[in-house]
Amino acid sequence: MEGYGKILRVNLSTGEIKKEDIPPSIARKFLGGLGIAAYYLYKEVPKGADALGEENKIFIAPGLLTPYGIPTASKTTMTSKSPLTGGFGRSVVGAPMGVELSKAGYSLLIIEGKSDKPVILRIEDDEVSIDDGSELWGMTTKEAQKKLKEKYGKVKTAVIGPAGENLSKISGIDFEERQAARNGLGAVWGSKKLKGLVVKGTKKPKAYDEGALRKLIAKWAKIIKDHPATKDDMGYGSGEFLRWMNLERGTFPTRNWQWGYFQSFYDKAKEGELLGIDPYYWVPKFRSGRNPCPNCTKPCSQVFKLTKYRPGEEIDGPEYETLYSLGGELEIDDPEAVAYLNLLCDEYGLDTISAGVTIGWAMEAYEKGLLTKEDTDGLELKFGNVEAAAEALRKMAYREGKLGELLADGSKVASEKLGKESYKFAIHVKGQELPAYDVRGIKGMALAIAVSYRGACHLTAGIYGTELVGKWWKFDGIDRLSAENKGFEVKTHEDLMQVYDALGICKFSRHMYFLEGFPELVHAVTGFDMSYAELMVIGERIYNVARAFNAREGFTRKDDTLPWRILHEPIPKGKSAGAYVKPKELEHMLDEYYQARGWSEEGIPTKAKLVSLDLDDIAEEVGVGH
Amino acid sequence: MEGYGKILRVNLSTGEIKKEDIPPSIARKFLGGLGIAAYYLYKEVPKGADALGEENKIFIAPGLLTPYGIPTASKTTMTSKSPLTGGFGRSVVGAPMGVELSKAGYSLLIIEGKSDKPVILRIEDDEVSIDDGSELWGMTTKEAQKKLKEKYGKVKTAVIGPAGENLSKISGIDFEERQAARNGLGAVWGSKKLKGLVVKGTKKPKAYDEGALRKLIAKWAKIIKDHPATKDDMGYGSGEFLRWMNLERGTFPTRNWQWGYFQSFYDKAKEGELLGIDPYYWVPKFRSGRNPCPNCTKPCSQVFKLTKYRPGEEIDGPEYETLYSLGGELEIDDPEAVAYLNLLCDEYGLDTISAGVTIGWAMEAYEKGLLTKEDTDGLELKFGNVEAAAEALRKMAYREGKLGELLADGSKVASEKLGKESYKFAIHVKGQELPAYDVRGIKGMALAIAVSYRGACHLTAGIYGTELVGKWWKFDGIDRLSAENKGFEVKTHEDLMQVYDALGICKFSRHMYFLEGFPELVHAVTGFDMSYAELMVIGERIYNVARAFNAREGFTRKDDTLPWRILHEPIPKGKSAGAYVKPKELEHMLDEYYQARGWSEEGIPTKAKLVSLDLDDIAEEVGVGH
Repeated sequence: MEGYGKILRVNLSTGEIKKEDIPPSIARKFLGGLGIAAYYLYKEVPKGADALGEENKIFIAPGLLTPYGIPTASKTTMTSKSPLTGGFGRSVVGAPMGVELSKAGYSLLIIEGKSDKPVILRIEDDEVSIDDGSELWGMTTKEAQKKLKEKYGKVKTAVIGPAGENLSKISGIDFEERQAARNGLGAVWGSKKLKGLVVKGTKKPKAYDEGALRKLIAKWAKIIKDHPATKDDMGYGSGEFLRWMNLERGTFPTRNWQWGYFQSFYDKAKEGELLGIDPYYWVPKFRSGRNPCPNCTKPCSQVFKLTKYRPGEEIDGPEYETLYSLGGELEIDDPEAVAYLNLLCDEYGLDTISAGVTIGWAMEAYEKGLLTKEDTDGLELKFGNVEAAAEALRKMAYREGKLGELLADGSKVASEKLGKESYKFAIHVKGQELPAYDVRGIKGMALAIAVSYRGACHLTAGIYGTELVGKWWKFDGIDRLSAENKGFEVKTHEDLMQVYDALGICKFSRHMYFLEGFPELVHAVTGFDMSYAELMVIGERIYNVARAFNAREGFTRKDDTLPWRILHEPIPKGKSAGAYVKPKELEHMLDEYYQARGWSEEGIPTKAKLVSLDLDDIAEEVGVGH
Repeated sequence: MEGYGKILRVNLSTGEIKKEDIPPSIARKFLGGLGIAAYYLYKEVPKGADALGEENKIFIAPGLLTPYGIPTASKTTMTSKSPLTGGFGRSVVGAPMGVELSKAGYSLLIIEGKSDKPVILRIEDDEVSIDDGSELWGMTTKEAQKKLKEKYGKVKTAVIGPAGENLSKISGIDFEERQAARNGLGAVWGSKKLKGLVVKGTKKPKAYDEGALRKLIAKWAKIIKDHPATKDDMGYGSGEFLRWMNLERGTFPTRNWQWGYFQSFYDKAKEGELLGIDPYYWVPKFRSGRNPCPNCTKPCSQVFKLTKYRPGEEIDGPEYETLYSLGGELEIDDPEAVAYLNLLCDEYGLDTISAGVTIGWAMEAYEKGLLTKEDTDGLELKFGNVEAAAEALRKMAYREGKLGELLADGSKVASEKLGKESYKFAIHVKGQELPAYDVRGIKGMALAIAVSYRGACHLTAGIYGTELVGKWWKFDGIDRLSAENKGFEVKTHEDLMQVYDALGICKFSRHMYFLEGFPELVHAVTGFDMSYAELMVIGERIYNVARAFNAREGFTRKDDTLPWRILHEPIPKGKSAGAYVKPKELEHMLDEYYQARGWSEEGIPTKAKLVSLDLDDIAEEVGVGH
């Protein structure tokens, strides 16, 4: 790496454009990607800033290893204060944008201030301009990206759709078939009138030791290619284990988490049939190609060609999470329908997880009579109704009608607006909807989503595999139904995953790299001589910065909680029948976890811990203790 | 530091003498002192080795900073498998020997094998010989040291006394007025027929950046000299807070821990008098001088001139621990008597803490009628009987008579030999007697001594100050009587104290240095660029190596326990009246602690934790998990 990376800072209020250096000490402490983006978010967005106001900023940082063609190193992190949670916002995307930003010469892009009218931020190497984006405002993501390519030629693009423009708290950013979907960061773009980002870079980033790096790339490409998990895992994409999750674990949340399993799966399994949304069913029928992330040697992408809805059109997906949120969650077993709803979410710029779970909440409210046709603008909002779901998505994106206004900001806001105890089936943590793991039957995962600094999330700890299989990186004997001994387990997974996001490595390759490959890759790229311990400490440091951001905003133990349903309603049937997280179990797991983390019993990092992580200034600002 | 330090390896079985290099990677992971001595002990002394057999070894390593004249950097660590605990044995001593070893060119001395006849190991720079020691065998430590100085001239010496020769499990090594007393390492010397070590070095070790180091030494000397704690703490030595411990905290164990206070203190306080063993009483009367450790800028030493017993003789001490073990523990309030018993322990080469507490146990057994005059060889072994205590010490050192044989190996062995439920008042953990803090009223400290890898010890975590004052390095609000939130607290103190022992810094300066001074000092000495986090990880790594040594020997959760009395008998009176550690509280604290440490619920380090500390091979050997 030449120097320690450059910052490009663009102020949309003043039009000022600056280039700065990342200080060596910061690079060594935070590496890149999430690390750098977390540190600058903490430092630059003050306590109490309005997430949709001028004080909030957007930080985009390619992972440290992303620019160099390293296998599965494809990720770029975006951070902002989240409009959805009010806390630390993070979205990680596997897209060519990160590589392109690096080639343009930047390790971190900071977008600050607020424009009065729609703009496009254009970066072509050293040339940076804030261009008029008025004609794109109102367009879907696909339309806007097409326009940008026409106008700017061979660039990489990221845009928001109508949902982001309309400040939906569950809106994301589309990076050409990849979404930075979660935490509502699309609304941050929308609030700044930033419709899109186009980047072109022509300078190949230079590694510290190019010769060593070439050898390491060959070595790891072979390891990953030959690894059994590459074939086992990804031939049918990330949804491969849906059947197993349903039948063998009973932890595939369905019908807005009324069930921990998709009922028809059981019925079909009896007949020897596959569920419709099972990739083993739909991939052979509908896959028209694959569209891997940059540097990916074990791609999960399955390009889906629609025949029923908008025939002939293609969509990259649906992934496992979306097969849940727009499939099982809504009790829809038609893969074409799920792919279609997925396409709509991408076009509108909505997070498929949050949007699906919010509609699931509305369907349950509707079936319970808490919502009437008057509230739904006439929609028959029942589970399984594809057309109603599609229309609801459109209304959410445009905040159209009563239903659009009700649902546009996710299930927490919706349930607060509706009242009538509808919070009891609003499936979110800190405002963000839950991913596709019924945590009533995966208790370490329940702890992980309860404590995650970005609200419910499967990737902040990435612990589901360990718990469901009962065995993973240096752990085993894990009882997924027990609430014992989960504190250190969750902490370790979290720390390790922060390292992945700092490096930009895809978490689907955590069967292969673990820590083992990282010291040599980091050395080849930066010249830093780092042991496993130092990398893990960087992960812990990043995690504590994010937690400190939330602590500064006033988050405490009470925010580390779970949806009412998870804490009170057992899974009714299947392999996890009877399981739920007793409130006392959650409290016990929190106690364990805070001890493992070195935080107070209120969940605030202690000064001792923060100083031990070289975060002296943060210790002074938020740390508990002397 | 030129290179990363040399190992001198001497085999007493074969006479072979070798010089080896410490690999750079090991130096970076473990620094020096305890770190290096712990790593080599783990690596070289196999599972199940007889602590008094040929397979056990002696490792002596000056702290990384000890050779350079850095303020309060005076410590040298010795490790071996402990005959007393059967686990990881450690003794840290503040003595010129470490500086001398460094000047002779060695960062680690390894003594292995076993001689048939008494020997002296002589090191003069590159010249090393195993000399006959027959004429010294049987001598007290003082006699032997005098002889060695006569024979070898201006050398630094370390010797065992009769206790070590007779393989007492509570025997130590005398380093000229400083004792490596604990864990029975004197018996390891005795078992190898190693009477003494003499060292002379003439080469000044060279630091990586001598100019920077000189400035840092001046800077820290001033900080420490001007620090209020320097005056407050040490004008009267380490026993200064004895009065406060007794009257204000009620945690000064007395009469074999039947009381948490010295009764006469209360009586005298009423009259406005001082207790006899209070240094504010005896220092003005008996101090004849001071004898600081090398590099000490806040010396605790108080040289005591005897008038009643062996008039005219001098002894360095007694320290706070000894004012307890040979004072309060035996209900002796005469400072001259305590100094005299201290002198005897030093001469015989007995650990004052273990020897005193063992005699305290015997006195209680005698007063309870469990021991008769027949068992005591006629001694009237009652609390307060100085002459009987002195005679008991002699018998222990020489294993003379029934009493000597009973008590020579400490209170655990003695209570097992005696039976009759006398274990209920044997005050030890893992076989090692407790230091001078009534942990019934200091519950984090209770946890610390329960888990310490070397058995009961006040310095492995060094947490008593934090708990008693309720405030210390980045911690505060600590409730000494609560069993909540002690896991991370103890872990952090332990990790930090391992750093102190790796660097060779005196723990009495932990009010001043903390972590703050260490990165710059380590850099000036080695060129290593280390943050707080890296230093703390080194501390954690060392702690885990020691724990792994014990795990390999079969230690588990059941060994992390407390004396029966601590768990069942409340302190009867004083400021901690009613306090004890309920067995459930101990279990709770262990649960918290293991989570904070990343160990299994059985107290075994997980593979995940060990690998995260760059201890891959140890993870394979003892780690729990996949």
